[in-house]
Amino acid sequence: MSVTAAEGFQAAGLACGIKPDGRPDLALVATADRRSVSAAGVFTSNRVAAAPVQVSRRHLDDGRAAAVVLSSGNANAATGEPGRVAARRMCELTATGLGCEPADVLVCSTGLIGVPLPTGPLEAGIPALTDALTTEGREEGARAAAEAIMTTDTVAKEATAAVAGSGATVGGMAKGAAMLAPAMATMLSVVTTDAAVEAGALREALAVAVESSFNQLCIDGAQSTNDTVIVLAGGAAGGRPIGVGGTAFHAFVDALGTVCASLAEQMALDAEGATKLARIVVRGARSPADARRAARAVALSQLVQCSLNGEDPYWGRVLAELGASGAELDPEGVDIAYNGVVVCRDGMAAPHDAAAVAAAMRRREIEIRCDLHRGDHDSVVTTTDLSYGYIDENRTTS
Amino acid sequence: MSVTAAEGFQAAGLACGIKPDGRPDLALVATADRRSVSAAGVFTSNRVAAAPVQVSRRHLDDGRAAAVVLSSGNANAATGEPGRVAARRMCELTATGLGCEPADVLVCSTGLIGVPLPTGPLEAGIPALTDALTTEGREEGARAAAEAIMTTDTVAKEATAAVAGSGATVGGMAKGAAMLAPAMATMLSVVTTDAAVEAGALREALAVAVESSFNQLCIDGAQSTNDTVIVLAGGAAGGRPIGVGGTAFHAFVDALGTVCASLAEQMALDAEGATKLARIVVRGARSPADARRAARAVALSQLVQCSLNGEDPYWGRVLAELGASGAELDPEGVDIAYNGVVVCRDGMAAPHDAAAVAAAMRRREIEIRCDLHRGDHDSVVTTTDLSYGYIDENRTTS
Repeated sequence: MSVTAAEGFQAAGLACGIKPDGRPDLALVATADRRSVSAAGVFTSNRVAAAPVQVSRRHLDDGRAAAVVLSSGNANAATGEPGRVAARRMCELTATGLGCEPADVLVCSTGLIGVPLPTGPLEAGIPALTDALTTEGREEGARAAAEAIMTTDTVAKEATAAVAGSGATVGGMAKGAAMLAPAMATMLSVVTTDAAVEAGALREALAVAVESSFNQLCIDGAQSTNDTVIVLAGGAAGGRPIGVGGTAFHAFVDALGTVCASLAEQMALDAEGATKLARIVVRGARSPADARRAARAVALSQLVQCSLNGEDPYWGRVLAELGASGAELDPEGVDIAYNGVVVCRDGMAAPHDAAAVAAAMRRREIEIRCDLHRGDHDSVVTTTDLSYGYIDENRTTS
Repeated sequence: MSVTAAEGFQAAGLACGIKPDGRPDLALVATADRRSVSAAGVFTSNRVAAAPVQVSRRHLDDGRAAAVVLSSGNANAATGEPGRVAARRMCELTATGLGCEPADVLVCSTGLIGVPLPTGPLEAGIPALTDALTTEGREEGARAAAEAIMTTDTVAKEATAAVAGSGATVGGMAKGAAMLAPAMATMLSVVTTDAAVEAGALREALAVAVESSFNQLCIDGAQSTNDTVIVLAGGAAGGRPIGVGGTAFHAFVDALGTVCASLAEQMALDAEGATKLARIVVRGARSPADARRAARAVALSQLVQCSLNGEDPYWGRVLAELGASGAELDPEGVDIAYNGVVVCRDGMAAPHDAAAVAAAMRRREIEIRCDLHRGDHDSVVTTTDLSYGYIDENRTTS
C-alpha cells in the first residue's frame, strides 16, 4: 500500500488530460481527517526551480501540511509567474475539495520543462481527484497515485518499512528514471508515516535518509528543476512525538532510510535504458568529501558507463576518473576490484581470475570497489550503464 | 605538411607492432640538425599521469628539446616503475638514433590504460624510425607521423598558419577523438615553428593558445592520463628571439592559436560517433569563471547531447543545466537562442519561427547561445551530440 501503508492517509490517482496519450497524470496524498500534520521536504538545489517547488517551499514554512497534489507530463518549470499562478491554483482546488487551507497543500509536477501548464484539465481533474480519495480503497488509491506520477518510468515505485520498537509504519512512492544525479534525481517522492514526529526532527530525519538514498544515485549528472521529496508524519500510531536524538528517533530514521533507499534502488533499476546497476564503492579516502567526489566521478563517467554496457572490466578508465576527480590519492597506491576480484593493485594491472571477472560483468548488478589507502572515509554511489536505450529515450521529446 | 611546415623540422611514422592490427603506431618529430631548441608543453592535470607524461615533464625542465617520440595503441599509463623505465627507454633509443641527449627527447603515448607497454617492438621500431627521418620527404614524413598517432581517430589532424609580419610558420598535428574534456582531451599534439621564441615566451604563448582551443572542447568530460601538447620553436626563420609581449609575440600567439584551434575543431568533428558539432556560447555572465562553468555544464549534459542527436531544440534542458551549473543567474532573466533564433526569453518559452529552428537543428553545426544578463563575461565551449556510435566505440576495448 506504500504511501497509505501508515494509518491516517489516503491517496488517489487519475487521468485529467495533461498527458496527450491519456495515461494517469494527477495524484493526491492526504491525511484522512484533512488536518495538517508534521511535514518536511527536500527540494532541488537547481537555481532554476520549478513553480511548484517555489510554492511548496513557502507552504512548508510552518513545517505542516495536510496534502500533496502531484501532476505528471508537464514540469511547470521555466513558466514564470503564470506557472506560479497555476501551481497555487492546484493547491486552491485541492484545498477546496478537501476542506483545508491552500497553504496546507504542497504541490509537485514532473515532465517537460518550458511548456505552460494547461489549467483546464486541472479545474475538472482535481475535484474528481479529491472525490476519488473517499471512494477508492486505501490500497488501490496508493497504487493509482504511484502510477499517476510516472513519466518515462516503466514501473511504479513503492516501499514500506516498520519503525522498530513501535507500531508505526513508513510508506512511500516515487518516480524517477532520468536526470538522475547527485542532489537529486528528476524525482518526486511522497512518504507518509503514522509515527508522531516533531517537525524539526522530521526535517533532520529526512535529510539523513535522503543523503544515504536518493543522493547516492549518480546516473547522468543532470539535476532537475523539480526534484522533491516530502514526508508527512500523522501520528495515528500514537505515542509521544519523536524529537531529535534517542532510540525512537534513530528507529524512525532507520525506517525512513529503508523506504527511501528502496525507492532509490527501484529508480536506478528503472533508469532509462539501463541494463546494469553498478555500485561504486570508494574506500580509504582522506575525507568524506574526497570519498564522495571520487565515487561520483567514476559513477558519472560516460566511458565507465559504456564499459559497463559492454561488460568490459576496463579498470584503466576507473583509475583515470579517480585521478581526475580531485580526490587526494597516490596513483600507485590505488586498488580496484570488480565484485571482489582485484584487477588493479598499487595502480597497476594485477594478476586475476579473468573468467571470474567476466562472469561478474555479465551479472545485472556489479560492484566496483576502489581503495585509495589515504584515510578512513568511504562512499557508495549507485549508477547504471549507458545504452542505446538512454539515447532513444532522450533524443526527442515527442 | 603540418608538423614539418616550419623550416628545420623532420618527421616520420611507421608501424612497429604495438597495435595488434598492424596500423602505424610510432611517430617522431625532430629538429633537422638534431640540436635542441626552445620547447614548451602542457600536460594533463589528472593525478594519474601516464609514465610518458612524468618523463616528458622532467625533460622539459630546461625549456629545450630536440625531438618528440610518440607511440599509439598503448597509453603506458597505470604501469608503475616499469612504465617509466619503458618511457625513458623510448627516449634513449631515439637519442641514440638521432645523436642527441636522451634528456632532449620528449615522449608521448596514447591508447589503452593499464596494459604494460611492450618494449620489444620499440627496440626495433625506434631505430627504423630515426632512419626514416632522413629517407622520407618532409611532407610524407609529416603525414606518416600524423597517421601513426591515431587511435580511434578516423582522420589525421594537421594544421598550419603563418606568423604575421615575419617569414615564420607554425605547423602541428594532433590526435584525439574521445575523453574530450576541459583541460584537456585525450589528445596528443606536437606543434613546430621556425620562429625564434624564448622558452618563457613559448610557455606563455602555448598557455594562451591551449586555453582558447583544446581547453574549449567539452565532449564527454573525461580527462585522460596522457594529454600532452608540445611546441618546439627552432628559429630557422631568423630574427631576434621573441620575448613576452609586443607585436611579434602577439603575432606568434595568433598563429599558434590558429593552429591549435584548427586542430581542436578537427578533433571535435572527428569525435567518436558524433553527428553534430555544437558551440555553446554563454554571454553576460557575472565572471569569467561563471561563464565557463555555465557553458561547460550545458556542453557536458548527456541530455542536451541526446537532444542534439535527435535534432530536438529542447531548451528546457539547457536552462536546467545553466541552473545547476553554479553560475549566478536569475532564472527569469535568461534568454536562449538556437542559431540566432530566440526560443526562450526571460526564462520562458518565446514565440519563434519553429521551421527556422528545425532547419537549424538539421545542420551539422549548431550554435546554442545563452544570455544570462548578469555581467560582461562570455565563454564558448564546443561539444557534440551523444550517439549510438559513441557507445559502440567505447563498449569494449577489444
